[in-house]
Amino acid sequence: MEKKWVYLFKEGEASKKALLGGKGANLAEMTNIGLPVPYGFTVTTEACAEFYNQGEKLSDEIKAQVDECMKVIEEQSGKKFGDINDPLLVSVRSGAAISMPGMMDTILNLGLNDDSVIGLATKTENERFAYDSYRRFIQMFSDVVLSVPKYLFENVLDDAKEENGYESDTELTTEDLKKIVDEYKAIYKKEVRKAFPQDPKEQLEMAINAVFSSWNNARAITYRNIHNLSHSMGTAVNVQSMVFGNMGDDSGTGVAFSRNPATGENKLFGEFLMNAQGEDVVAGIRTPKTIDELGDIMPEVYAQFKEITENLEKHYKDMQDIEFTIEKGKLFILQTRNGKRTADAALRAAVEMVGEGLITKNEALLRIEPSSLDQLLHPTFDETTMVEAEALTKGLPASPGAASGKVYFTAHEAVAAVGKGEAVILVRKETSPEDIEGMNVANGILTARGGMTSHAAVVARGMGKCCVAGCDEVRVNEEAKEFTIKGEKFVEGDTISLDGSTGKVYKGSIKTVEPNLSGNFAQLMEWADETRTLKVRTNADTPVDSETAVRFGAEGIGLCRTEHMFFDEERIPEVRKMILSETVEQRKEALEKILPMQKADFKGIYKVMKERPVTVRLLDPPLHEFLPQEEADIKALSDDMNVSIEKMKEVINSLHEFNPMLGHRGCRLAITYPEIAVMQTRAIIEAAIEVNAEEGVCIKPEIMIPLAGMKTELEYLKGIVENTVEDVIAEKDGKLEYLVGTMIEIPRAAVTADEIAEVSEFFSFGTNDLTQMGFGFSRDDAGKFIGEYIDKEILPRDPFQSIDQAGIGKLVEIGVNLGRKTRNDLKIGVCGEHGGDPESIDFFYRAGLDYVSCSPYRVPIARLAAAQAVLNNK
Amino acid sequence: MEKKWVYLFKEGEASKKALLGGKGANLAEMTNIGLPVPYGFTVTTEACAEFYNQGEKLSDEIKAQVDECMKVIEEQSGKKFGDINDPLLVSVRSGAAISMPGMMDTILNLGLNDDSVIGLATKTENERFAYDSYRRFIQMFSDVVLSVPKYLFENVLDDAKEENGYESDTELTTEDLKKIVDEYKAIYKKEVRKAFPQDPKEQLEMAINAVFSSWNNARAITYRNIHNLSHSMGTAVNVQSMVFGNMGDDSGTGVAFSRNPATGENKLFGEFLMNAQGEDVVAGIRTPKTIDELGDIMPEVYAQFKEITENLEKHYKDMQDIEFTIEKGKLFILQTRNGKRTADAALRAAVEMVGEGLITKNEALLRIEPSSLDQLLHPTFDETTMVEAEALTKGLPASPGAASGKVYFTAHEAVAAVGKGEAVILVRKETSPEDIEGMNVANGILTARGGMTSHAAVVARGMGKCCVAGCDEVRVNEEAKEFTIKGEKFVEGDTISLDGSTGKVYKGSIKTVEPNLSGNFAQLMEWADETRTLKVRTNADTPVDSETAVRFGAEGIGLCRTEHMFFDEERIPEVRKMILSETVEQRKEALEKILPMQKADFKGIYKVMKERPVTVRLLDPPLHEFLPQEEADIKALSDDMNVSIEKMKEVINSLHEFNPMLGHRGCRLAITYPEIAVMQTRAIIEAAIEVNAEEGVCIKPEIMIPLAGMKTELEYLKGIVENTVEDVIAEKDGKLEYLVGTMIEIPRAAVTADEIAEVSEFFSFGTNDLTQMGFGFSRDDAGKFIGEYIDKEILPRDPFQSIDQAGIGKLVEIGVNLGRKTRNDLKIGVCGEHGGDPESIDFFYRAGLDYVSCSPYRVPIARLAAAQAVLNNK
Repeated sequence: MEKKWVYLFKEGEASKKALLGGKGANLAEMTNIGLPVPYGFTVTTEACAEFYNQGEKLSDEIKAQVDECMKVIEEQSGKKFGDINDPLLVSVRSGAAISMPGMMDTILNLGLNDDSVIGLATKTENERFAYDSYRRFIQMFSDVVLSVPKYLFENVLDDAKEENGYESDTELTTEDLKKIVDEYKAIYKKEVRKAFPQDPKEQLEMAINAVFSSWNNARAITYRNIHNLSHSMGTAVNVQSMVFGNMGDDSGTGVAFSRNPATGENKLFGEFLMNAQGEDVVAGIRTPKTIDELGDIMPEVYAQFKEITENLEKHYKDMQDIEFTIEKGKLFILQTRNGKRTADAALRAAVEMVGEGLITKNEALLRIEPSSLDQLLHPTFDETTMVEAEALTKGLPASPGAASGKVYFTAHEAVAAVGKGEAVILVRKETSPEDIEGMNVANGILTARGGMTSHAAVVARGMGKCCVAGCDEVRVNEEAKEFTIKGEKFVEGDTISLDGSTGKVYKGSIKTVEPNLSGNFAQLMEWADETRTLKVRTNADTPVDSETAVRFGAEGIGLCRTEHMFFDEERIPEVRKMILSETVEQRKEALEKILPMQKADFKGIYKVMKERPVTVRLLDPPLHEFLPQEEADIKALSDDMNVSIEKMKEVINSLHEFNPMLGHRGCRLAITYPEIAVMQTRAIIEAAIEVNAEEGVCIKPEIMIPLAGMKTELEYLKGIVENTVEDVIAEKDGKLEYLVGTMIEIPRAAVTADEIAEVSEFFSFGTNDLTQMGFGFSRDDAGKFIGEYIDKEILPRDPFQSIDQAGIGKLVEIGVNLGRKTRNDLKIGVCGEHGGDPESIDFFYRAGLDYVSCSPYRVPIARLAAAQAVLNNK
Repeated sequence: MEKKWVYLFKEGEASKKALLGGKGANLAEMTNIGLPVPYGFTVTTEACAEFYNQGEKLSDEIKAQVDECMKVIEEQSGKKFGDINDPLLVSVRSGAAISMPGMMDTILNLGLNDDSVIGLATKTENERFAYDSYRRFIQMFSDVVLSVPKYLFENVLDDAKEENGYESDTELTTEDLKKIVDEYKAIYKKEVRKAFPQDPKEQLEMAINAVFSSWNNARAITYRNIHNLSHSMGTAVNVQSMVFGNMGDDSGTGVAFSRNPATGENKLFGEFLMNAQGEDVVAGIRTPKTIDELGDIMPEVYAQFKEITENLEKHYKDMQDIEFTIEKGKLFILQTRNGKRTADAALRAAVEMVGEGLITKNEALLRIEPSSLDQLLHPTFDETTMVEAEALTKGLPASPGAASGKVYFTAHEAVAAVGKGEAVILVRKETSPEDIEGMNVANGILTARGGMTSHAAVVARGMGKCCVAGCDEVRVNEEAKEFTIKGEKFVEGDTISLDGSTGKVYKGSIKTVEPNLSGNFAQLMEWADETRTLKVRTNADTPVDSETAVRFGAEGIGLCRTEHMFFDEERIPEVRKMILSETVEQRKEALEKILPMQKADFKGIYKVMKERPVTVRLLDPPLHEFLPQEEADIKALSDDMNVSIEKMKEVINSLHEFNPMLGHRGCRLAITYPEIAVMQTRAIIEAAIEVNAEEGVCIKPEIMIPLAGMKTELEYLKGIVENTVEDVIAEKDGKLEYLVGTMIEIPRAAVTADEIAEVSEFFSFGTNDLTQMGFGFSRDDAGKFIGEYIDKEILPRDPFQSIDQAGIGKLVEIGVNLGRKTRNDLKIGVCGEHGGDPESIDFFYRAGLDYVSCSPYRVPIARLAAAQAVLNNK
């Protein structure tokens, strides 16, 4: 039997991708599910191999099969190739099994010649269109098939416009175009030394040859080398009849979605134009009609289209985005693909499709991009108002949400303005812990410096507050209380708006819409919770944050940072006294005053969390962060504390570090100042005993020692913690279970986790620091080169946003394995920024962690991502 | 047969440590090799167990065996326990298998009572001595055996002195002492409610009981718990007869070394006093005689002693430090141990002992502490002058050697002063790369801040230049050109002296002695080279350093830092222009000017190193290190470069980093500014091709890319290097082999070394940075807490000085194993400070490295340590 080199679309099938190429297999699939796809056929990848076997020539056998298929198409369409009355025109496209740049471009309207162009003019009643198509076809064919330089053709076009004083191509008349066609043919003849082929079959054969040849052009070979693709796969060629929506009032073209892509409503949504080509819909010269109106104009076509869209959804099990053309009353589907949609629409469609029996719960869970949920949890700008808004500049989308307000430049002034009832946007070069209060009261934060994990970004995300960070074009002059964007000046009190989800900054105020957590959201979360095995905790430092997180489904606190509590206006003086103490006694005295405040914080948090686990981290940041930096603040503090300015500066100076990230912080503080650990332990334990008694609950605090690198550090500090707990329990005559564990955030801790686990009763990976130290990247400085690293493909993405699985992830895996070797039931979590990143969550699931902890607003994301991790790793 | 509970020294043997305790086994050994050790016996650790079995009582069997042994001693010594004429006195000491604090103290002169004190007085012809010994014995016995508070006795003594108006104990007369003895006995009776035991046997039994009881006192139990020692081992008790050197003119006491401990000369060396106790030799009231004079006074005893010392050396195979006493013409050896010695003496003795057939070459190699060689390679202060010198203060012994000179406070002034022929000590708060020139010309460097791995320390060691760093008490005022030490002021031009081996700082000038590398040094090094398998390279950046290192035996350069070359006065302006460039073109132009200079450096180094391998590291430090910091320098530079001060400051500011150690440095620079790597590669390769042609050698440069964390970084840069090399080779029409490798100094690189090795042709561990990032310790800041960590036993030692084998070492092992998994012949070295540390070298040997690289002056140390590593791990 003769080998089959060419397949009509209806002869192919989706599974034959290697033979038919991706595009060919897809066209076959669409044809087979009964879609009215324009007729066509595919010349196989085997034919491509054969082409090379024959010395880059099509064998007679293949040519014969192509001819045969063309005949079938002529029959099906009732048109004839090259016909002067009703010509069949085709497109020719390459299509390898894996899509690849460098391959031949599409050729449209193949089959046009001096005869058929008249047929096209008649049928479309548009002579100008026909000749314009012809001249385009000649240029494209010459360029793509024979490499005739494009500029030769462009020159002719430019000359014609200049002669006639035209500004644009559209001014060219039919007569102009006819002349141009002649000149194009002359160019072809001169360059190719042959007349432009008038025989459509010859055109087709040349085009197929060109596609096959392009498989081995330099660009395609390089691409395959880089991506390790086999050179022997070959490409297929797809030949498909052209259809025209501009063949009169019974023709038309349009685009539609099977459901509303903005809301997800299960109702056909789209628009179309009668007697028009696809470009006309996009060009916006004529106003398209809504898809419903097609029902009035062509009820049968509309009914057919509706049925098709329903079948398509059933087939692809997802909302479809469909391009269609009606040629003389006959509907053709040109393309269908899964439709892009808003987070709202995605959620509604997924949940409703489960209800409709179209997809399973698991499919619904996998259908939603976890990060997209973030859009649902924050205020957003009102869509209608947004149409008019134009962004002034764009920074990093550091923390989602939308906010408008008057700009203020210091935390102090922000607090004062909010006190007067103003809505405030805090604008800073960059933020520091001193700004916490101001950030807390502001509606949004804008910084000129810092990356996605800068102080501003991390804190804002934790607060669920809108933040645009690292906005280079914003030049802030904090002293003058003004900033400029591209020369435009903004002063204190001017109103701006921030979109933390896009990073865009707007002038003036924009209306915002509050999030509406509909039943669909709750439904999806319920399914996620049924599926996931990873627990989801939150990073929260206050009762308010804890409440938000619990509302979003947090199952505990994975990281309660005690230092944020230290910046409160009432407390900071005592904290500073503690730091400036010259003797242990002075330090203890200051700590005595901090104790009741810190205890009250913990009581507040425990009361919210009830029996959900709470992990409290002992003091972590270097002490200098608590001291004032500005001259005036230093003076105020030294007056207040009755210490000379010189003395104050000396202390501040002595706390200066060259590399604070690698300096005197974390458990190193507690080792040199054990009395701080004693005070904090006391606050944690006293609060727990008291709340247990008051509320009748059974809180079991988890005390977390930060930045340990060695077992010996933990031994020393666990001893101090245990002695303190014993003291408190004895004083209170109480009873309490508690755990002492550590963060694994130092590379040395990861590789000696077996030793660490001898002392530590739980692990929490601090992947921010682990990334900093594991990579040797300061997250405050890496912004200078990480962008270039990503551009040069040295890094696939910012490792502070999504964990570097191959390297930092390996340290995590080593830590997990060694830790569990010592304690096989060791509870292990992660509390870095990565705890809220879906890709990282997939990794943590595979690495065997028990929980992730993330900022409150990322809890729903983490719940969904954790469910997806289970489904994706089945 | 009756169980043996008590062993005479001559019945024991060295191997019975568990039974006899460490001290007992040692006394048995000395006795068995024929030394005249004072007679005695050991009550075994088994007797201790039995003591507890019997409810803390000595069994009759044990008591009987003790009695029997006492009789033997009486016979041997010809004295009688408690005798009024010639009493036998004994010492009682505890001695467990492992020495341990908390056990009972020594009791001396047991056996003294109201009778025997008279005998002691008669025999020593010194009644005062006898009663003083008696009162001391009563106090010690009461305190140690019965816990009578010491202060009760001290009060009596103080009262006696006060009554008589004495200032010191020595003024007490015999009569005073007799009265005191009576009062002491009264105290005993009052406290113990029994008379002081006059029966020596009773004294002995009580003392043995007390030793056994002390095994279970609280302090000893705690110690064993902490150190994981078994509580069931028990302790032994040693009872030994006392001998007296003050029994007349035929008695005496002294200390001698079997060889000269200062020079190593094989000649008896020591001193003695006739008719004296050991304390008298130490007290310095009478001037001791040299040991030779004993030959004149007591020729037979001298001959016996000489023979004994020779036998001791043969037995212990090492120089001995021996305490002896002559009692009535009879020689007793009280103690012998390996003698402490200078590095010179150790070297000479070890080499000569091999010649004498006393020890093997391997034993000689193991006998020398590698670090001690450092003393032999640098100038030292003349010993005779030193006697008078008094140290002003003490800092860290950052780089060995001794130097005197006039103090200057800036590199610039130091250079000028040296130009005028002055000897200079550069004094700075801390040094920075800008000071290199000044450090280079100075005789020594003193800094107020910085640790053992501070810039000053590292650079000075590299230069083999004396440096005292981190000298807290030195308050430097660089602007006023002065410093103070404990209030004493020193100004520019004042002379001071530094001892970099001790860290001491002296006022004025001290004579120095040049090192004399004798034949013994060369001999030992030859043996080391025959033994070791690790290669030893050097870290050298200049031809001069390279020459020094080759002289010390370096087999190649493991680290040539190209940035040090950038600080040259001629070059720094071009380097700064390069940094301040706004376009790639400007940068290339500046680099063009640097190229010939850098090429000249490499040619100079290649000419010294010939065919020894040279590893050149591409630019590593952050660019801001090359820019001026001081206002005046910034102004000068901006004038010079015709750039506004504002612009200059802006650039300097923009290069500021929060954590420069984790910032834009190492290969990150070459990735953002590839043109720097191109220039450096060109210099390396052009130089090699030219020197190969000029000298007829075959240099194969090793280009080392610093701070890589990812395979992709290396791929990118290796591509740039390879393209450049191809260009140069084509231009020069030359031929050259070369390697491209990387440093493994980022934790991520260590754990992904299998991937890294796909690109990297060799590895060099940068354990300084690996320690910084692996521990999360900035070496510039860790000084603040590392001391406390060591005090609190959280760290055993400074991990920047000796590699942390359990943690950072594990990263090294992971890196070696993964790297060799990809390339099984991968050449791996280390070029951090640890490359010159003996303990670290032992680790690197075990980890399977091919070479270590260290500063020139540590090359001999590394050669010896590498030999010891082979011998110690056989």
